[in-house]
Amino acid sequence: MKIDLNSDMGEGFGPYRLCDDEAMMKLVSSANIACGFHGGDPDTMGRMVRLAKLNGVGIGAHPGLPDRLGFGRREIPFPADELRQQMLYQLGALMAIAKAERVTVSHISFHGAMGNMVNRDPVIADLMMDAIATVDASLVVFVTSGSEIQQAAKRARLKTLALFLADRAYDAEGRLVARGLAGALVKDEAAVRARVRKFLLEGTVETIDGAVIEMPARSILVHSDTPGALALAGIVRGEIEATGATLAPAAELAD
Amino acid sequence: MKIDLNSDMGEGFGPYRLCDDEAMMKLVSSANIACGFHGGDPDTMGRMVRLAKLNGVGIGAHPGLPDRLGFGRREIPFPADELRQQMLYQLGALMAIAKAERVTVSHISFHGAMGNMVNRDPVIADLMMDAIATVDASLVVFVTSGSEIQQAAKRARLKTLALFLADRAYDAEGRLVARGLAGALVKDEAAVRARVRKFLLEGTVETIDGAVIEMPARSILVHSDTPGALALAGIVRGEIEATGATLAPAAELAD
Amino acid sequence: MKIDLNSDMGEGFGPYRLCDDEAMMKLVSSANIACGFHGGDPDTMGRMVRLAKLNGVGIGAHPGLPDRLGFGRREIPFPADELRQQMLYQLGALMAIAKAERVTVSHISFHGAMGNMVNRDPVIADLMMDAIATVDASLVVFVTSGSEIQQAAKRARLKTLALFLADRAYDAEGRLVARGLAGALVKDEAAVRARVRKFLLEGTVETIDGAVIEMPARSILVHSDTPGALALAGIVRGEIEATGATLAPAAELAD
Amino acid sequence: MKIDLNSDMGEGFGPYRLCDDEAMMKLVSSANIACGFHGGDPDTMGRMVRLAKLNGVGIGAHPGLPDRLGFGRREIPFPADELRQQMLYQLGALMAIAKAERVTVSHISFHGAMGNMVNRDPVIADLMMDAIATVDASLVVFVTSGSEIQQAAKRARLKTLALFLADRAYDAEGRLVARGLAGALVKDEAAVRARVRKFLLEGTVETIDGAVIEMPARSILVHSDTPGALALAGIVRGEIEATGATLAPAAELAD
Repeated sequence: MKIDLNSDMGEGFGPYRLCDDEAMMKLVSSANIACGFHGGDPDTMGRMVRLAKLNGVGIGAHPGLPDRLGFGRREIPFPADELRQQMLYQLGALMAIAKAERVTVSHISFHGAMGNMVNRDPVIADLMMDAIATVDASLVVFVTSGSEIQQAAKRARLKTLALFLADRAYDAEGRLVARGLAGALVKDEAAVRARVRKFLLEGTVETIDGAVIEMPARSILVHSDTPGALALAGIVRGEIEATGATLAPAAELAD
Repeated sequence: MKIDLNSDMGEGFGPYRLCDDEAMMKLVSSANIACGFHGGDPDTMGRMVRLAKLNGVGIGAHPGLPDRLGFGRREIPFPADELRQQMLYQLGALMAIAKAERVTVSHISFHGAMGNMVNRDPVIADLMMDAIATVDASLVVFVTSGSEIQQAAKRARLKTLALFLADRAYDAEGRLVARGLAGALVKDEAAVRARVRKFLLEGTVETIDGAVIEMPARSILVHSDTPGALALAGIVRGEIEATGATLAPAAELAD
Repeated sequence: MKIDLNSDMGEGFGPYRLCDDEAMMKLVSSANIACGFHGGDPDTMGRMVRLAKLNGVGIGAHPGLPDRLGFGRREIPFPADELRQQMLYQLGALMAIAKAERVTVSHISFHGAMGNMVNRDPVIADLMMDAIATVDASLVVFVTSGSEIQQAAKRARLKTLALFLADRAYDAEGRLVARGLAGALVKDEAAVRARVRKFLLEGTVETIDGAVIEMPARSILVHSDTPGALALAGIVRGEIEATGATLAPAAELAD
Repeated sequence: MKIDLNSDMGEGFGPYRLCDDEAMMKLVSSANIACGFHGGDPDTMGRMVRLAKLNGVGIGAHPGLPDRLGFGRREIPFPADELRQQMLYQLGALMAIAKAERVTVSHISFHGAMGNMVNRDPVIADLMMDAIATVDASLVVFVTSGSEIQQAAKRARLKTLALFLADRAYDAEGRLVARGLAGALVKDEAAVRARVRKFLLEGTVETIDGAVIEMPARSILVHSDTPGALALAGIVRGEIEATGATLAPAAELAD
C-alpha cells in the first residue's frame, strides 16, 4: 500500500518560526507551503521549496486569508471573486518561486478559514476549482472526503487526494469534531499509533462515539504548528513503515 | 514607426486609488500592473488584468519592495536572494491571476527602489534576470537604455524594451536627472509635446544642459501617480498619432 | 444655538489620500483622526494634529479594526478583550502624538465595523466605555442617539455627543438606513440643505417614509471619503451660518 | 547594591512567540514591551502589562521601526519627524493599555535599527528626547553609557539608566562589538557568570582585547529572542542574588 504523509510548512514569518521545518521535511512526502498571507513570506517560501527539492518531497501551495494576526483562522467576509484572486495570487507566487528552482507545484491544500469558506458554498467551490484548473489542470487538490471542495474539484476534472487527520476526532458522518469541543484532539501517543495502524490496515477510523467508519483517505496530515508536531510526525511515519506501507507523494496517489 | 506607450497601473490598495485606471487603460498599449507589495492587491490586480484584456493592452508585472507605507521608494537592505524571491513571488502572483483570465503576462518593469537596487549591482541584476528567464524566457524586460538591467537581461537572453520618459529631464549621459533636482520634471505641456515629437521623429532628446542626445527607446512611459497623469498620457498619445506612429504592445517591439 | 461639525480625517495612508484634509480642516469644528488601523499612519496623524491645532479644531480619536485592505468596514470576529486593546492602542497612540504638540485629544468616535460590533453588544460596549473612562474620564464619546454605545458611555459616566448625518436617510426609529438600500444616501444638494436647516431650526428630520422625528443631536457628521465630501461640508457649514447657529467643538457641547 | 535586570518582552505576534514571556517575567525587574511595530500587537501588549503588574515588574515601551518582516533590525530611511511620530505612536499606545490596567509606563528602551538611527544623529536624538519629555517628563530612558541618546536625554532633563549586556563583547571604548564579528557573543555560561560577577562587584568589564574598563551601568539586559534566553536570565539573576545585590526596577535606579 502506498500512502502520502503531508504537513503544513513554512508557516513562520520573518524572525518567527512555528515548526522545525528542516526536520519535518525529512519525515513527510508532501509539503503544503504557506504562501505569505496567513503565514510565510517569499524568503521562507524559497527556503521551503529548496528543502522539499533536497528531500524529494512533493510541493503544494497552502493559501490562506490575508490575516497574519489571526493566522488565517478567522473568517473575513470577502466577496467570492476577491477570495478567488487571493487564492490565485498565492498559488502563482509559489509556482514562480518553485519554477525558478526548476521544480513544480503539484498540489494545493487550503488553510483554515479560507478552506472553511470554500467548503461551505458550492458556488465559491466551483469558482475556485475552475480557476485552479485554468491555471494548471494537473494540480491535485487536498480534500476532506465528501466535502464541497472534493465535489467541485471533480466537476472541474481536477484530481483530489483525501486526507486523514490522525490526531483529530471524527463524528459518525466522517466530519472532524470542532477544535473547541471535548475530545476533539487525540493527544495520547498510543491512541494516535492505534488510529494510524487501524487506518492503514483496515481503512477505517473509530469515531468519537465509538462507532467504526470507513476513512477513504490516501494521505495522512500531521499538523506542524503544535509543540509535539515533530514527534507526532515521527510516530505516524513509524507506523507507516511498521505496517509495510510505502510513502508516496500526492501526485502518485491522487484520483 | 511603431511605438509602445506604457504606464504603471493598479497602484491603489483597498479603498485607495492613485489613478483613474479605467481611463488610463484606454490610452496605453502596455500596462505595468502593481503586484501587491508597494501597491496593488489581488482584487485590484484581477481588475487590471480584465481591463487590459478588454482594451487589448499588453500585461506586465510591476514588482516593488514590500513597503506600502513608503510606496516602494525607500531602499531597504534585503539580501540579494531575498530580493529575488520577492520579485518571483510578485511575478508569479500576476501570472496566475492573468492565466485564470486566459491572458498572458508579457513583460516586467521594476518599480522604484527595487529597480534602483537591481540597476546598481550587476551580480543582483544577473540573479534577477536568470530567475526571470527560468520562469518564462519569453518575458520582455523594460529598461533604461544602457542600464545594468538591460545588460544583464541580454546576458540571460531576455528581450528588452528601452523606455523614454517624456516628462523627465535627462543628462548628457542619457541618465534621468534625479527627482529632487531643479528641472528634473518637465511640467509644461508644450515642452512635453515638443519632446515627444522630437523623440518620435528624430529619436533624440534635448538634455537638461541643452545638448541633443540619441534616445534609443521604443516605449514611452507616462506616470500614473500624479494629478495630471491622465492629461499627460492623452498629450503623448495625441503626439504619437499626430506624427503618424502606431501604437504596439511591448511583445511586438522588444529586441 | 451652538452646533458641532465633524468629519473623519487623515484616513489616507503613505502615498494615498482619501480627502483634502487641509481644506476640510478649515470647515469643521471637530476632527475624528484615523489612528493607523483602518487608515492613517503616525506621520499622517501628526500632520492632522498640527492642522487641527492651527485651525482651532477639536481633536478626536477615530479607531477602527486592523484591516487596511477592507478600510475597517468588514467585521472580523475578535474576542471582546482584544477589541478593547485595539481601541486603547489607537487612542493612546493619538494621545501621545497630540501631547507632543501640546494639544489634547478631547473625543473618540468609532469607525465602521468596530462601531457596529460595539453597538451590537452591551457587554462589549461597557468594556470599551470603562476602558475609555479609565484612560481619560473627560473624553467625549460620539454616538448615535439611543445606541448601546451611548447608554454604556452614560453608565461609565462619560459625556456623549449625538450625531446627525445630513446625507444619510433615517428610518422611523431614528436608525440609519443601511448603505446598500435604495434612498440610503441623500445626494441632492437642495435636499441636504433642507435637512440641515430643518434639523438646526426644529431639531427634527424627515424619515425615509416621510414621517418627521426628533433628532436630538448636537453635532453634524460629514463624510470625507467621497468625491463630493468637501462640497457637502461647505453646504452644511453654509446652512449652519445661515441659520445663525455657531460652531463649537465637541467638548463644549457634550453632556 | 541595587541593580535592575531587564529584557525585551512580548516580541511575538499573533500566533508567534519568540520567548516564554510568562517565565521571563518572573526573572526580570523591568520589561521592555514591544509596541506592535517590529513585534507585538495590542493583545500581546495587554497580556504583557498584566504579567508585569502581577509580578511587580517595571513597564517600559520598546518601540521599533515598522518592519515586522525584518524585526526592526534593518535601517529604513525615515525623515526625522516621521521617526519621532512612530516612536510617539508606540509609546502612547502602551501608555493607554497600561493605564487601563491602572499601571504606569515608567521607561523607554529603543529597539534595533530605531535605536541605531537615533544614536547616530544628535539632532534626531534631541528631537526624540524632547518629544518623550513633553509626553511624560518622568520617563526613564534606557541607554548605552556615553551614547548620543544618553546625552540628549540629559539635555531634555530626562533620567537615564545605563545598560550592561552580559552576553555581548565590548571594545576598549565601551562600545558593543558588532553582532557579525568574531567573539561578539559570549556564549559560554561560565564566562557570562564571571562577567556578571565582575560587573556587580567591581563595576568593570573585560573588553574583547583583554583590557579592563569601567562599566557604569545600573541595569543588566538579557535578550529574550534567542533559544537559551531564559537560561541566561536565570544565570544572571542567580549571580545577582549570589553577590548579595538586590533587584530594583528602573524608576528607582535612574539618574
